[in-house]
Parts: sequence; C-alpha cells; structure tokens
Amino acid sequence: MKSNLQLDARGRLRHLLSLDGLSSDLIIDILDTAEQHDKLLAGPEKKLGTLSGRTVINLFFEPSTRTRTTFELAAKRLSADVLNLQVAASSTSKGETLFDTLKTLEAMQADMFVIRHESSGAAHFFAEHAAPGVAILNAGDGRHAHPTQGLLDLFTIRRYKSLPGEATRDCFSRLSVAIVGDVLHSRVARSGIHGLRILGCQDIRVVAPPTLVPVGIKEMGVSVHHDLEAGLDGVDVVMLLRLQKERMLGAFLPSLGEFHRDYGLTRARLAKLKPEAIVMHPGPINRGVEIEGDVAYGPRSLILQQVSHGIAIRMAVMSLILGRDNGERR
Amino acid sequence: MKSNLQLDARGRLRHLLSLDGLSSDLIIDILDTAEQHDKLLAGPEKKLGTLSGRTVINLFFEPSTRTRTTFELAAKRLSADVLNLQVAASSTSKGETLFDTLKTLEAMQADMFVIRHESSGAAHFFAEHAAPGVAILNAGDGRHAHPTQGLLDLFTIRRYKSLPGEATRDCFSRLSVAIVGDVLHSRVARSGIHGLRILGCQDIRVVAPPTLVPVGIKEMGVSVHHDLEAGLDGVDVVMLLRLQKERMLGAFLPSLGEFHRDYGLTRARLAKLKPEAIVMHPGPINRGVEIEGDVAYGPRSLILQQVSHGIAIRMAVMSLILGRDNGERR
Amino acid sequence: MKSNLQLDARGRLRHLLSLDGLSSDLIIDILDTAEQHDKLLAGPEKKLGTLSGRTVINLFFEPSTRTRTTFELAAKRLSADVLNLQVAASSTSKGETLFDTLKTLEAMQADMFVIRHESSGAAHFFAEHAAPGVAILNAGDGRHAHPTQGLLDLFTIRRYKSLPGEATRDCFSRLSVAIVGDVLHSRVARSGIHGLRILGCQDIRVVAPPTLVPVGIKEMGVSVHHDLEAGLDGVDVVMLLRLQKERMLGAFLPSLGEFHRDYGLTRARLAKLKPEAIVMHPGPINRGVEIEGDVAYGPRSLILQQVSHGIAIRMAVMSLILGRDNGERR
Repeated sequence: MKSNLQLDARGRLRHLLSLDGLSSDLIIDILDTAEQHDKLLAGPEKKLGTLSGRTVINLFFEPSTRTRTTFELAAKRLSADVLNLQVAASSTSKGETLFDTLKTLEAMQADMFVIRHESSGAAHFFAEHAAPGVAILNAGDGRHAHPTQGLLDLFTIRRYKSLPGEATRDCFSRLSVAIVGDVLHSRVARSGIHGLRILGCQDIRVVAPPTLVPVGIKEMGVSVHHDLEAGLDGVDVVMLLRLQKERMLGAFLPSLGEFHRDYGLTRARLAKLKPEAIVMHPGPINRGVEIEGDVAYGPRSLILQQVSHGIAIRMAVMSLILGRDNGERR
Repeated sequence: MKSNLQLDARGRLRHLLSLDGLSSDLIIDILDTAEQHDKLLAGPEKKLGTLSGRTVINLFFEPSTRTRTTFELAAKRLSADVLNLQVAASSTSKGETLFDTLKTLEAMQADMFVIRHESSGAAHFFAEHAAPGVAILNAGDGRHAHPTQGLLDLFTIRRYKSLPGEATRDCFSRLSVAIVGDVLHSRVARSGIHGLRILGCQDIRVVAPPTLVPVGIKEMGVSVHHDLEAGLDGVDVVMLLRLQKERMLGAFLPSLGEFHRDYGLTRARLAKLKPEAIVMHPGPINRGVEIEGDVAYGPRSLILQQVSHGIAIRMAVMSLILGRDNGERR
Repeated sequence: MKSNLQLDARGRLRHLLSLDGLSSDLIIDILDTAEQHDKLLAGPEKKLGTLSGRTVINLFFEPSTRTRTTFELAAKRLSADVLNLQVAASSTSKGETLFDTLKTLEAMQADMFVIRHESSGAAHFFAEHAAPGVAILNAGDGRHAHPTQGLLDLFTIRRYKSLPGEATRDCFSRLSVAIVGDVLHSRVARSGIHGLRILGCQDIRVVAPPTLVPVGIKEMGVSVHHDLEAGLDGVDVVMLLRLQKERMLGAFLPSLGEFHRDYGLTRARLAKLKPEAIVMHPGPINRGVEIEGDVAYGPRSLILQQVSHGIAIRMAVMSLILGRDNGERR
C-alpha cells in the first residue's frame, strides 16, 4: 500500500515516505544520481537549474537544524525557491488541522513539501491527501522513518566499502553491519534496516540494552545482541544511534553513564574492530555517551562525510521526483 | 487624506494601506493585473523578473504563517530578494521605536515593506514617515484593514460570479453579499466592505450576533442582520469570517458552541442557499465553529482558490507599485 | 598570532575576526572596495554575481535583527545563497558542542560563516578550527570585537570628514574622536579604537563614568574623560555607544536617568560642539538615554548613513575574501 503511494503509475518515485517498499533498483538509481550531485558539489560551481521556478516548502513541526538546513541547501543548489515554515506556534495553534495546513500550502502552488513531524505517519497522511502534482518528502516522522537519512547511510557505506567495479548488491550482501544504541526511539534505525535489507545485506545486528530494543524487531530480519563486544565482532560497519536523552524517562532505562560504560564506542573498543571497519553516526553526537569525541573525529569515522552526502542524496531525490517533468506542469 | 498618501502625483498606487479611498478604476486595474499573474502561475514557469534587484522586507509584529508566506512567495516569484523579520523579540524589545525600526530598515535600501501589526494605523504611520522611494503594503493592522485580503476576495467573486463579457462594476452591482460572523474584530470585514462598495455592490449584509457588530457599521452602507437564515436569504456570496477566539473574552460574547448553533455554516444551511451561491473564508478556518469541515471542502467553497488568488493579487500590487519604474530608481 | 590567523600566506584577508593586527593598507583597501559597492547600491541595479554559487551561513548564537539583516542583504546582493541559523534552541541545546556545530556546517560545503556569539573569542575559536576553504566573519563576540562595525564607522568618518583629495591616513591623523558611554561592555568601542589607531588617529578620547571604563583601556592609546563637556571639547567626531541596559545590574552603576543627565547627547550639548562635528551611533539607540531623538535624526547625525555603509562594508569584506578566488575552489 505504501509502496503504491510512493510510486507513480510507471513505477517512478513520486513521494519519499519510507524505504520500506522501494525496490533495490530504485534505491540504486537514487544512490547513482547522488554520486553525480556529490561530484558537482566538490567542484567550483555548486548550482544546477533543475528546479528553477519550483517551490519547495520545508514544513517542520519539530525543530531541527541539521536536517532542515541540508534540505534547504539541497533545494537552493537546484535553484528552487525555498520557504521555511516552523509550524506549531502559528496556524496549527489557531486550530487549523494538519489537513487544512496541507491544502492551504498546496493552494500556494508549492511543488514539494519536506515534512518533519513528531507523529509517526504524518508524512504518509500528507501523501495520501496531496494533490496530483505535489510531492511529499518525509524528513522524519516520529519513530517511524527517516528515509533520506537511510539513503545517505547506504551511500556512505557503498562509497567506502565497495570494491572497484563491484555491483551495489554484491557489496551489501557481503557486509556485516551493527546498529548500536537507542533502537527503540530511532526512526534512523528503522530506515537503515529497511535499506540494508533491500540491498541484500545478510548480517544486520541490533546491539542495545534490552530496554532499548523494540518488540518485534527480529521480524525485520536482524539479530539482536545485548553484549557490545559480541555484537561488534567482525563487523564492517558500525552505525551508532543518537541516544534520545529527552525521551529517556523510564525507570528501567539506563543512565547516561551506564549506557556509555556498556555501549559507548571508545578508543579501546574501536581498537578491537576489524582494521577496515567504518564508524557512522547520524548526528548530532552526544560526546561521551554513545561515542567518544576522539572516535567521532578519528580516521575511521565518516560522520562528517555523512553530512555532505546528505545534501547530495536530497538533491538526488528532489531531482528524480520534480526534475524529470520540469516543463510539463499540472 | 489617506487616499493622497496611497497615490502618487499622477494618481498611481504608491502604498497600499486600505481600500478606502481607492477608485474603482484603480481596483479593477489591480484585479486585471492579477488575472495575468494568475495565468502565469498556472503555467510551467512561475517566475518573472519584474522585481529583480529589488528588496522586499516582510516586517511582522504579529505572527502569521499564511499571509507572510503568500507575500514571500509573491515577491520571490517576481525575483525580488526577500527578508523576513519577525519583530518583537529583538530590536523593539530593546527600546527601539517603530520609527527607528522603519528608518533603520530603509537605510538598508529596502524598496518595499510588508507590514503586519496589532495596532490599527501602524501601516499608515509607516507610510507617513517613509522615504520617497519606499513603498508600504499593509498586511493587516489591528482591526483596521487588510487590503490585499479584500482584493483577493473581490478577485475571487469576480472570477466565479461574473457573466461572460460582463464589466466588473456591472457584476458587483447586481450581487448580494453576506459577511457573517465576528465583524467586530475583523479587519477582513472592513476591507471587504470598502472594496464591495467601491465596485458598486448595493446589497451588503452584515450577519452577526449583536455583541459582534461594531458601532457605526451601518454608516458604511451595509444592512445588519442578527438572524442567519434571513441574512443569507437570496445571497450570491457568503463571506465567512474567522472567529477570533483569542479575543472572545467578554462576558456577553457567545460561547463557541452557541456561535456555531446560531451562525455556523452547516450542510443544512448551505442547502437553503441559492444553488449558485459561493462560500468564502479568509482562513484559517475554525472547523465546527464558523464552518463545518464538509462545507469548507465542498464544491461551493472557494476557500483554497482564495489562497491561490492571494499570491496573484500580491504579485499584482507589488508589480504595479515597484515594477513600473524599475530602472529609474531614487 | 591573531593577525596570522586572519591573513593568508600572501597577506590577504582570509577571516575577519578583529581589526587588531590588520595593517592600515588592508583596512584602506576594504574601505575603498566598500566605496565601489556603496556606489552600486545607490544605482538602479543592486546585485552583483561575485558570490554566485557560494553559500554563506549566518550563525547567530545571540539574537540580532540589524546585524544579521545587513549581513544577509550583503550576501544576497552578491548573489550568494544565504542560510540563517539562530542557534541555541536547537542543536546546541541537544549537547552538540561549538566544534561539532562548526564541523557539521562545514561538511555542508558552506564557504563562509558569519558568527555572533556571547562569548569573547568564539569567532577566533571557529577560525582556528575551520577547514582551509572556509572563511569566518566575526559579527560580534562578547565584549571583544565587532570588526565590521568598526570598519563601517571608519568608512563613515572618512566619507564625511576627509578633505578633497586627502589621503586616508592624513585625514584620520588630524581628527579628534570621542567615544562616549558604556565602554565597559562594548565590543563596538574596542573595534573602533583599534581601527582609529591603525589609521593614525592621535586624539581618541573615551568619555564615560568611572564604573563604565574597563581596566587597562589607556594602554590602547586613548585618553579617559569622566566629564562630558571636557571630553567633547573640540572633537570632530562623537561616537556614542548603546547603553547595554540589560547588563546594567551592578549596584555602583548609574541609573538611566543619571546616565542621561551626565552623558546623554542633548540639543544643548550638541550646540557646544564644533559646528562641523558629526554624531554617530551603532544603533539601536536608546532614545532619551545616550541620545535625544531630535539629535539622532538631526542634520549632524550620521546614524542612518552608518546602516547603509554597513551593507557596503560587508559586501566589500565578503568580496575580498571569497570573490577573488571564485572559480579556484577547494
């Protein structure tokens, strides 16, 4: 059902709500398109005219500097007009419902909405009710999904772990990946697992204390580890998660100190990994909680590269959805 | 006096503060210009170079998503540089007066200020003190005026109620229009009444409980009705107003439930209107208060069209004021 | 040390952190470049393509309407993409350190950061840790420096006080300048003093109550006056400072009324100045505290001109740093 909503009649991307339901071909197409955009960003001239005359509205019901900024930069580098709406204080507090907000902004002839919302399913709701010409990008909805983060993680893994000439699926099918930390509250973990599975990854490990593992996670095709050392043994990729400190209110949840002691990635633990293993984190990091500062900025960390790749991925998704039919507008 | 302030020596629009004092020719000129912009917005390429190199500052002393966004989009689609200043928290709280704010921003070589302020007369004050080359657009001042809203309402009525080939004044002179709800607190109602009168509308009805009718409203040339059914009898246009819930503090004011019972536009009441009557609302709607959700999104509602028309109207006003002398700057 | 950090190997401006350590040649070069930009801003077309394709991020840890707006306008008129980040509420409150914020934003391929921070040294910290291709502009750090304000003050003095054909250093070496008011809390005063000294000004007077004079100020080469009349006697330039009311908490500090009585620039005091003396203020003014409203908008006040010059100065600095190597990017 969701996959239908995300694709048009010809199977092309129409909205991006979740990696769940996308084909490996489509995901690889996004990654390949992002490679082209990433090359462009490394050059002297960083702008393309792909979305010239188009309007992208960043509709953030939750604050976010990093994600909002990268979406804004991606849209501006494609020459779109960008509007930032930090909702909550204004219209919705006056009683306008989500639906009314969508319809009102659509009536302003916006072409794409980038939506972050604290409720799982908000982006899906928008896509269900969006007018034909309007695209919805999910920039994180509750604990559900954060698909552009999942894509940029796949992009980063492929770039740093694939062998010369190796096909994408061949690369992912031989990699072992550990996702470490607060899986319970993490939409990043969910999107990452979906993406890895679709690209054929066989060994996906969730490493977390029992209280931070969601019920039913094994049905997503992952193994669950409570011991960090065992969980990291032999992996090629360590994907750390941000500890959602503001949500750690439960009496049975670990303290920050306990979490760091048992699950924090320290230099000592880093030394036990395979020498070519890479370390990733969606940011912003909690220094001294899930990761030590020295590890975050060490040679095996790709945390900053992930940020750069995030812009290329978002440009790619926007281009694929809006750029192809520029000129044949509703 | 106000009309002089709004017009230049040749009778052309210089500021837009209120529809009061504008000629029907000038208003029809704005509506016709907006028609051209609306056609453009429906096409593939939505940008014009009319305001290229010009700077428009949105100066909002009151929060507003909808109005601020449409002004921003209008300016961007005319290729202006746009700055959004949400004032209150910053300079004015440091003791800088309104005058100082205006003069400081003028010194930044801004060409146009779009101003929303909680005090009636704020835009007028700005226009009185503005430097020669600087234009002021009133985006809503207290209970006084919201002229671009009035213009977009006229635009919507003309588009949906005029007969083929009919002149604008002929159209409005034969229409019956009911303005329903919280007229007391409504700058939208005031601007609407001025606009309708100028274009020759003979039957303008204000429909509201006695406590929400301002003193002296009859002198604006309207009839006053306290009974909804009688007020709506035979009308061509129903203009609902947003109930300003945050201002409904008086002991003699109706509760939301009472208001809906007596003045809310329900499906049952809609069925009693003339079949070709249209329903309008400036938004955001209070569902279940002044309008039922089904009516708001029903076939006779033009609420979303009003939003679209708002961009065309704002582009037209900006073009007429700033666009004509692009190249011959102060 | 600082001067090295601000300059590249060829002695060209790389960051702008403080006027301290810059040569008079470099400052005059900035002023001359700003003259060209100021001429441009007075003409019909106000945009240049100098920074096309470049990204400037305004990173404000302290609120500021005026400074942020002028930097934003300057960057937009050079055709840069501009992002405004008002930090505090978002990432840093989640525990991300300043360093993490810098590195994350750098990874988004930003070319320049404009930084305002309540801590002295914050811009310097950023410049120390910035990647090779990234430029840092200090838009005010604590009580330390506000170099673009210093430059626009120098620009204003030179424009209004130099004789036809007079060299910049000759002009400043014959001028007497009084800096009046809350020197203790003022980064504007510090940047002004550095700039005046570098351009050869011999008679710089600090005029303030003893409690608002910082320890060691005389070592900057200024004289200190506690009596306003004596301090203003014979000066060519009066630079008023904004009284930082929000910081006036000490028991020994003057009340606003006392300050105005002893140090406020009134019409009566203005009349005693040399007839050609000019009055400056960085804004926003506290009417009735450090200056009377009539004086602020009187014929000898250059307060609004300072605002205009601020845009030209910021365009000049951005052009000098980023514009010269456009095309040969990292």
